[in-house]
Amino acid sequence: MLAVMKFGGSSVADLEKIRNVAERCIKKWKEGNQVIVVLSAMGKTTDGLIGQAHQIADMPSRREMDMLLSTGEQVSVSLMAMTMLKMGVPAISLNAWQVAMHTTSAYQNAKLKRIDTERIQKELDSNKIVVVTGFQGINKYDDVTTLGRGGSDTTAVALAAAMNADVCEIYTDVDGVYSADPRIVPNARKMDEVTYEEMLEFASLGAKVLHNRCVEMARRYNVKLVVKSSMSEEEGTVVKESTKMEKMLISGVATDKNIAKITVAGMKDDPESTFRLLNLLAKHGMNIDVMIQSLEKDGTKTLTFTIARPDMLMAAELLKQHGDVLGRVDISCEEDVAKVSVVGAGVSSNPGVAAKMFEALSDAGINTDMITTSEIRITAVIAEDEAEAAMRVVHDRFAAEWE
Amino acid sequence: MLAVMKFGGSSVADLEKIRNVAERCIKKWKEGNQVIVVLSAMGKTTDGLIGQAHQIADMPSRREMDMLLSTGEQVSVSLMAMTMLKMGVPAISLNAWQVAMHTTSAYQNAKLKRIDTERIQKELDSNKIVVVTGFQGINKYDDVTTLGRGGSDTTAVALAAAMNADVCEIYTDVDGVYSADPRIVPNARKMDEVTYEEMLEFASLGAKVLHNRCVEMARRYNVKLVVKSSMSEEEGTVVKESTKMEKMLISGVATDKNIAKITVAGMKDDPESTFRLLNLLAKHGMNIDVMIQSLEKDGTKTLTFTIARPDMLMAAELLKQHGDVLGRVDISCEEDVAKVSVVGAGVSSNPGVAAKMFEALSDAGINTDMITTSEIRITAVIAEDEAEAAMRVVHDRFAAEWE
Repeated sequence: MLAVMKFGGSSVADLEKIRNVAERCIKKWKEGNQVIVVLSAMGKTTDGLIGQAHQIADMPSRREMDMLLSTGEQVSVSLMAMTMLKMGVPAISLNAWQVAMHTTSAYQNAKLKRIDTERIQKELDSNKIVVVTGFQGINKYDDVTTLGRGGSDTTAVALAAAMNADVCEIYTDVDGVYSADPRIVPNARKMDEVTYEEMLEFASLGAKVLHNRCVEMARRYNVKLVVKSSMSEEEGTVVKESTKMEKMLISGVATDKNIAKITVAGMKDDPESTFRLLNLLAKHGMNIDVMIQSLEKDGTKTLTFTIARPDMLMAAELLKQHGDVLGRVDISCEEDVAKVSVVGAGVSSNPGVAAKMFEALSDAGINTDMITTSEIRITAVIAEDEAEAAMRVVHDRFAAEWE
Repeated sequence: MLAVMKFGGSSVADLEKIRNVAERCIKKWKEGNQVIVVLSAMGKTTDGLIGQAHQIADMPSRREMDMLLSTGEQVSVSLMAMTMLKMGVPAISLNAWQVAMHTTSAYQNAKLKRIDTERIQKELDSNKIVVVTGFQGINKYDDVTTLGRGGSDTTAVALAAAMNADVCEIYTDVDGVYSADPRIVPNARKMDEVTYEEMLEFASLGAKVLHNRCVEMARRYNVKLVVKSSMSEEEGTVVKESTKMEKMLISGVATDKNIAKITVAGMKDDPESTFRLLNLLAKHGMNIDVMIQSLEKDGTKTLTFTIARPDMLMAAELLKQHGDVLGRVDISCEEDVAKVSVVGAGVSSNPGVAAKMFEALSDAGINTDMITTSEIRITAVIAEDEAEAAMRVVHDRFAAEWE
């Protein structure tokens, strides 16, 4: 069996932890598997390098940033290979150009395009554990690029796809995917399996176990993902195509506080005005999330939507500046909001899910604002200070069914 | 004009120093020159990385060491390029594989074989300052290698040769090459010019301004080297082919305390025994230096030689173990010795030089042991605790002629 094992920065933060990870990988290798290990930079290394760069310039050159940051993973892979060799196991470290991992040319936010398999295959064939730098690639100019947020997870999945690995194991500081945040909902249940789609919904809802990019890629190339704890030997959660999971009504509850609400009143009531507004925000890289539109008695339109909280002020400012295309609009912002969502393959086929969710919220006296649904998700916007309570009551209402 | 400017680790030890170096390079660029900058790792970075590796293993994998250490220069070149860009000057950093710099495959002690000029030329043509990692290369396996001691200087000279640069400036913490160590001989004189040959003798004599490898390479490819201070605007010392320098009797005095003396008595008096001894040491990477051989009355031979001090014990042990090839020999070691040497193109053509040197030592009551000479050097082995005094008296004896 060929396994890709990915460990994040906190799992390789010091030499002691590197030794633990090495032992774990060696165990798998000794069981007769071929092993590719993908690593992030050690602990706070990347933050330290970013800090230095920001002492030089507020907006350092993006190309040079990638040249700088990519050293972090090279340090962790070489120390890891050294550690394995010291333990008497053949191992070799490879960076992005040695592999090579080809990306688009966008510095700091590159996308993987193609991974050459020859070098890795050669090293696997000679029975070595291959330790590869996550998060980085090279572009067509032979420049170093980095993959942006969730980059190392994406590297691991892409490698698993390219090498046709049997499994891609993502080791984190939690031991799997839970039906709700276990720090808030004590009786949250660890899921044995979850579908790609559910995982995507969880990620977009702020349960940040895996980045969407990596789940998307796993789905596209049908890579079997396992989320596991780097601390324990627990089984973890398998992320894969839906099979026997249909019977499960919902698989989990998530909240997201990193949102803000913007209301735009007094828009002209024509189809174009909504499009113009969305277009304006998209051009500036801002995605809107839950959206409702209502027609007022005076013939104007009111548009309300949520947006990532850090984007709120900039979005409001943009909309003010473009009164010409939007009409004479009135803009108001609200920061103290949150989303609570239930996710599960059974949502669309079971009309009772929504009723159950809103009953639970209503019983707890939690008011809901906007509501939106997808095939496998129901989301309500609520007050921020009620987010934890909402998660708890909704989770408990469904929990009985998991027993 | 195309200039290669090389700065060592202490010149780029922090962001402030990086800014100073950037200003210096930009000044040269603004004067209408093309500029290639070669950098070592920042300050103690390399030592820090070596320290980590040695916590993992006493003898860490050499391949992985190079993978680890090469990150050091990549950090300094990217921070340097960022700094220049922030100052509004086009700049780009390149590491060894981007250039590419091809080396032999010997990790930790690779030799440069060939440097591709295409990428650097392209960047120079687009008017950029090109900032290149010193000390590192890639081998035929696409593995990272490092060049060993004096590596960054060698990178700079090799780049100057490959790019046909007009000058290769090596910036150090001294402002040139002196006729003796100015910390020991207060009236030591900074030389304006020195030949490659003299520079080579100085380096081998422990005056470590430039490593021999870099001087050898400069001589072979006729690269004009300038040794300058990174702190001041002083002129520095030019290292080049001998031209008008013949009239100078000697150019400097150097001492070397990093030696030990080994005496091997009772060797068989045949030509082979000496060869066998030298061969034995060479096979273990130990070079002997000054050597004398004398025939004893009992028909045996005594061989006395100096060797790098850290090699002494190992050399003595080796010789003891091989009594079979050397005969029943008697080995004695002496650590408290040093060499004092005068160097200069006029040495061989002026028999008076040796006389003057030994007269100065004799006047000061300094006893000389073994003596050896080359075309441009006279070396005497003396007691270690007299090394500074010897340097001073010999230097003063010749100093009058420089006025």
